[in-house]
Amino acid sequence: MNYIIYKNENALYYECGYSCDNAVFLTLGSESFFITDGRYEIEAKEAVDGAKVCIASNLLEELVGILKKHKVKKVAIDPKEWNLNAYFFLKENIPAKFKFKPDFSHKKRIIKSAKEIKYLKKAVKIGKSAFKEVAHKISEIDGLNEQRLNFLAESILRDFGKRDISFEPILAIGENAAKPHALPTGRELKKGDLLLFDAGVKYKRYCSDRTRTAFYNGELNFKIKQKFGTKKMQKVYDTVLKAHDRAIKKARSGMKASEIDKLARDVIEKAGFGKYFVHSTGHGVGLDIHEMPYISGRSDTVIKDGMVFTIEPGIYLEGEFGVRIEDMVVMKEGRAVVL
Amino acid sequence: MNYIIYKNENALYYECGYSCDNAVFLTLGSESFFITDGRYEIEAKEAVDGAKVCIASNLLEELVGILKKHKVKKVAIDPKEWNLNAYFFLKENIPAKFKFKPDFSHKKRIIKSAKEIKYLKKAVKIGKSAFKEVAHKISEIDGLNEQRLNFLAESILRDFGKRDISFEPILAIGENAAKPHALPTGRELKKGDLLLFDAGVKYKRYCSDRTRTAFYNGELNFKIKQKFGTKKMQKVYDTVLKAHDRAIKKARSGMKASEIDKLARDVIEKAGFGKYFVHSTGHGVGLDIHEMPYISGRSDTVIKDGMVFTIEPGIYLEGEFGVRIEDMVVMKEGRAVVL
Repeated sequence: MNYIIYKNENALYYECGYSCDNAVFLTLGSESFFITDGRYEIEAKEAVDGAKVCIASNLLEELVGILKKHKVKKVAIDPKEWNLNAYFFLKENIPAKFKFKPDFSHKKRIIKSAKEIKYLKKAVKIGKSAFKEVAHKISEIDGLNEQRLNFLAESILRDFGKRDISFEPILAIGENAAKPHALPTGRELKKGDLLLFDAGVKYKRYCSDRTRTAFYNGELNFKIKQKFGTKKMQKVYDTVLKAHDRAIKKARSGMKASEIDKLARDVIEKAGFGKYFVHSTGHGVGLDIHEMPYISGRSDTVIKDGMVFTIEPGIYLEGEFGVRIEDMVVMKEGRAVVL
Repeated sequence: MNYIIYKNENALYYECGYSCDNAVFLTLGSESFFITDGRYEIEAKEAVDGAKVCIASNLLEELVGILKKHKVKKVAIDPKEWNLNAYFFLKENIPAKFKFKPDFSHKKRIIKSAKEIKYLKKAVKIGKSAFKEVAHKISEIDGLNEQRLNFLAESILRDFGKRDISFEPILAIGENAAKPHALPTGRELKKGDLLLFDAGVKYKRYCSDRTRTAFYNGELNFKIKQKFGTKKMQKVYDTVLKAHDRAIKKARSGMKASEIDKLARDVIEKAGFGKYFVHSTGHGVGLDIHEMPYISGRSDTVIKDGMVFTIEPGIYLEGEFGVRIEDMVVMKEGRAVVL
């Protein structure tokens, strides 16, 4: 197959073990090309594996040149990756037929290799100890507000500049934990508050993703067993935990993603909180923090061994609080194993 | 004019004073629409100015509905903003003609209003005091490496979580300062090192951008007058400073951007370092950190009062060191005034 990857760093990296923010990757049958500009020449020539490195100030002109030289008649592209400007430049300059293959890099990457699973496992392990350290520090310091708490959490996750994170962490208190997309406020953490923490780190570019919801009584821990100060919080938490545990326990290779979503959703619906579980049960994780398979009620994707995804049911009560519990699993010998 | 803005946060904000990461803005003559999903309904209805807020789970379907209802025949879009997937969905579903207007939001925003200049000035002021604080802290602490220095700098720029930054700061030592895109390494700061610091903060979403190159002799300051430990460093620094000063002093409204680029470039070429000045002299700054006008040798844009841009000549000697000095200016009464 002939295909082009346009400026998508993780897709580029997956093809050849290197990426930078201005590059195009082209495969023509058995031959591949990595086109970038002079700033990256030294690094690219050292690191690119299995492709010829081409240096050019205008990547698209270089790409057109190679496609013309090889008289390419048909080439696949991901229409989500290309802006109109770049696409029409290509279309006007070469007579090839462009085959639109949405998400083709994500589709390639949906089953993880043993090495990828090892990296993801390691990322999860590092993330887990960062959660422990964040809880420890929050227990030590009084009177922090959400902004400071987020900064503290990010500092620890990044190991003060030494490590990459998967995404900007979310650390939300009480009523703010009910807003899936809230920005940190000046709200201070007080005894009796619920705290939701969603964060991940990268190991060799592979992401971790984890959420814990915890009760702050002057001390804090992110263990999965939590005692809350009110019956309502406890009931909601226990419901989410039950949904989380059930989806992990009963997920099987061969199921559709929507069936796994249903395993969690049924618990929450039965407890009467169905309409407060406003998102899908999970998403794949790899080089991208969100990739295939999507564990959603609308997804017919058949789950297979080697897929890695999150299980993260949640209940969000506007103006009160929100609970989400998230772990990453890998499908192995037909079952979901927590990473 | 009818036009659509697709998911570009700063362009959205410029139109109506609000943005979020999933929204489309549509203007049909005198009527405007802000289309977003349910997560942002409350905020959008409070904050959007001069447009009707429409809530939909599928933004493009909603957009098609409005365009059909109003029997729109022609509408402008920025082809750089649209991916093929979104564009072809639109094209297949409505008979309108799409007029491609690259950079039309940036073009609108090229002349800054008095209020925008006030915000940019304030951002620059905050950025400047952060530079002072970073120099102060580095002078206090010994033996930090680039990773830790970058983390320290970012912490101060962000005021430990309270403030947004314009971009990930660059703080590079010695030979790493010669790589325009180097990632922070484990290299420690030692007496006699040159240090390059390029950073900015945001004030009411408007960006600042500033670079200083300094000499570390156990102490550090980011003043523009610097004494370096070697003659070569001093010569390169003085050349860059002269180029920087000349471009600011001689820039005039009515000049082409390329002429301003030349004002700086001539100094560096004359000193024999022409081929080491590998980028253009500057770029516009506003809601985006990089916007029009581009102060490049290839730009015919005519500079006018109210434009805000950087002047940032540099010389990069591979394996040795790099120098860049950057300030933001606003064109006022025909001349460049440093912000």
